[in-house]
Amino acid sequence: MKVKGFSAAAVQAGIRYQDRLDLGLIYSDRPAVAAGVFTTNRVKAAPVLLGIERLRRGKAQAILVNSGNANACNGEPGMALARRVSTMAARQLEIDEELVQVASTGVIGEQLDAAPFAQQIPALVDSLSEDGFDAVARAIMTTDTVPKIVRKTVDIDGTLVSILAMAKGSGMIMPNMATMLCFAVTDVQIVFPVLQGIVADSVENTFNRITVDGDTSTNDTVLVMANGAAGNECLDEDHPERTELFAQAMHSVFQELATMIVVDGEGATKAVTIRVTGAGEKGGALNAARTIANSPLVKTAFFGEDPNWGRIMAALGRSDCFFRPDRVSIAFDDVVMAEQGMGAGAEAEREAARVMRRDAFTLTIDLNEGAESAEVLTCDFSKEYITINADYRS
Amino acid sequence: MKVKGFSAAAVQAGIRYQDRLDLGLIYSDRPAVAAGVFTTNRVKAAPVLLGIERLRRGKAQAILVNSGNANACNGEPGMALARRVSTMAARQLEIDEELVQVASTGVIGEQLDAAPFAQQIPALVDSLSEDGFDAVARAIMTTDTVPKIVRKTVDIDGTLVSILAMAKGSGMIMPNMATMLCFAVTDVQIVFPVLQGIVADSVENTFNRITVDGDTSTNDTVLVMANGAAGNECLDEDHPERTELFAQAMHSVFQELATMIVVDGEGATKAVTIRVTGAGEKGGALNAARTIANSPLVKTAFFGEDPNWGRIMAALGRSDCFFRPDRVSIAFDDVVMAEQGMGAGAEAEREAARVMRRDAFTLTIDLNEGAESAEVLTCDFSKEYITINADYRS
Repeated sequence: MKVKGFSAAAVQAGIRYQDRLDLGLIYSDRPAVAAGVFTTNRVKAAPVLLGIERLRRGKAQAILVNSGNANACNGEPGMALARRVSTMAARQLEIDEELVQVASTGVIGEQLDAAPFAQQIPALVDSLSEDGFDAVARAIMTTDTVPKIVRKTVDIDGTLVSILAMAKGSGMIMPNMATMLCFAVTDVQIVFPVLQGIVADSVENTFNRITVDGDTSTNDTVLVMANGAAGNECLDEDHPERTELFAQAMHSVFQELATMIVVDGEGATKAVTIRVTGAGEKGGALNAARTIANSPLVKTAFFGEDPNWGRIMAALGRSDCFFRPDRVSIAFDDVVMAEQGMGAGAEAEREAARVMRRDAFTLTIDLNEGAESAEVLTCDFSKEYITINADYRS
Repeated sequence: MKVKGFSAAAVQAGIRYQDRLDLGLIYSDRPAVAAGVFTTNRVKAAPVLLGIERLRRGKAQAILVNSGNANACNGEPGMALARRVSTMAARQLEIDEELVQVASTGVIGEQLDAAPFAQQIPALVDSLSEDGFDAVARAIMTTDTVPKIVRKTVDIDGTLVSILAMAKGSGMIMPNMATMLCFAVTDVQIVFPVLQGIVADSVENTFNRITVDGDTSTNDTVLVMANGAAGNECLDEDHPERTELFAQAMHSVFQELATMIVVDGEGATKAVTIRVTGAGEKGGALNAARTIANSPLVKTAFFGEDPNWGRIMAALGRSDCFFRPDRVSIAFDDVVMAEQGMGAGAEAEREAARVMRRDAFTLTIDLNEGAESAEVLTCDFSKEYITINADYRS
């Protein structure tokens, strides 16, 4: 599947490691409508600050991305570097530098060297191709073990529109956007405010509903470029039905990528959906689900395949959600492990332990207080997580 | 060191495991003024609910404590059990059952059997002795690797007053009191409101300033009995100077125990003081210190002895504390690793890595925004933590 007007490429620039793809470029043959969502962390990396500034115009034509170094916490030199490499790319592509978005991922707090960019950007531009997206998905990997890329087409009033999106992210993953990068390109014709709305909404309900370790990063970025090459009737505020079709497609693409991120969570051996139902209010349900999803004791019990529902109650009890303990029921998939705040016995526990052996299962906590619910996707906490993160920079 | 009028004992009751002390009793030969602080978790174990109810009178004479089972999430049967075992102890001791406090620690969500209590309480009462406190400190251990007990005397206007306190706690440790039990006995003569004030203050600045994993428990309890046997001039609201002496002693006892808990944190290999200085407001400083102290990525970097200050910046950035990234400096003990939000270079990093090999060090984050500061004591996150918690119930 191609996305009309878009091409991509990746090269080995030796930014931190040798012999691996670490510099990527995504390019549209015409300026595209562009929308983005960036980290909520107070510490924002240079490329994020630059990206926010440039995206005010709602337009972009290229994304230059490197792994190995996040260009975060580098002060003015970091900002200058981000501008400088964007200028290099713009010159080589012969486009306005304001239309170049830069993204970086990797180690925080080390100055990024311009030399590998200067050396490799000509080759990068030369090798742009419709088939280059898989290489970029590889180039943005850090502790990821697999590249993450999703393609989807959607029929809008008889015109086929394509979406291609890739993501990276494996640790430092938490709501408010996970340490992740996601780039999506689509040939849909759409106006900026509608695209921005769809992207913001979809991020909130997909990437902001996953967690690996509760940490958020300085570089989280979701960027979408829509170049209109498909030639569909323009998606704007006056056509909510056809816009909705595209919004659903974008949402499902993000959902697939978000799930891939959790499944590939650092050291993860299983993906667990935490569903809190019967809450009095939505915010409380989400807070409760996130608190449980980030509890080290709950996550180590997942790893140990131990249906230790007491730890779930304890995590729930320190969340900001109102509930009465004697109304709570807890189920692992369809096995009810606790009712009215009390354990359902040894047989239920044996069955729940069997459920936990699965690669993926759903933990449902019903508060029996109201009608609100929320879901968060998390993974277990294994020894491998510690190994990966204790040795990350060595 | 004895504490006048107090005795203690522990026995093997086989509550969960055989051949280990798991049932303890602390007793005052006269009713004592008693103060307590209990978990803020919305899910409170039966003994906590009973303890809060009984402590309204500000009096207690005995504490019955078991390990192996937390008697939490057990509904009405759990409450009935807590009352029943307190009655057993009261009868054997020939005191009012309202003066018996019960505490439990261990697995959540399993009904506690009364039989081991019925069988062992007579022997427990028979073996009460002034020297029995070390045995109780052993009996309350769960994943603790060492018993934690502190003794202190303080001279109040010529009268020697003694304090003996013990604690347990190793995992599920977070501010709002850590999953911990702490029992202190003192022969000081003191009025209830003054004692309660001292205990609440001391807990806030000691046990509420440590964290192992950010989880809080259903059973956290600090109980202090003061029986007046020392015969000092009574500590009351009209004598702030002499009260202050005692308050300082109590604070230092709690501080010592809190430190022992972190050092014995599940799988911990080092104790790290997180000090946030130069904050605009106190609450922000504390929130920032706690966020850093609980970040899995920061804690795994401690374990890896990697001065990965970027992760510290990232954790700081997701806290609720206001700061400007380009003003922040970070130091490992006396080694400045970052200034004005930027790294201090490779030599500083090598020196900081050397500091991190120590069993204990201080991480100072200066925001350079104001005059407020806060400290939290934490430990690193090792593979052993995962092992302990994945296999806890098996």
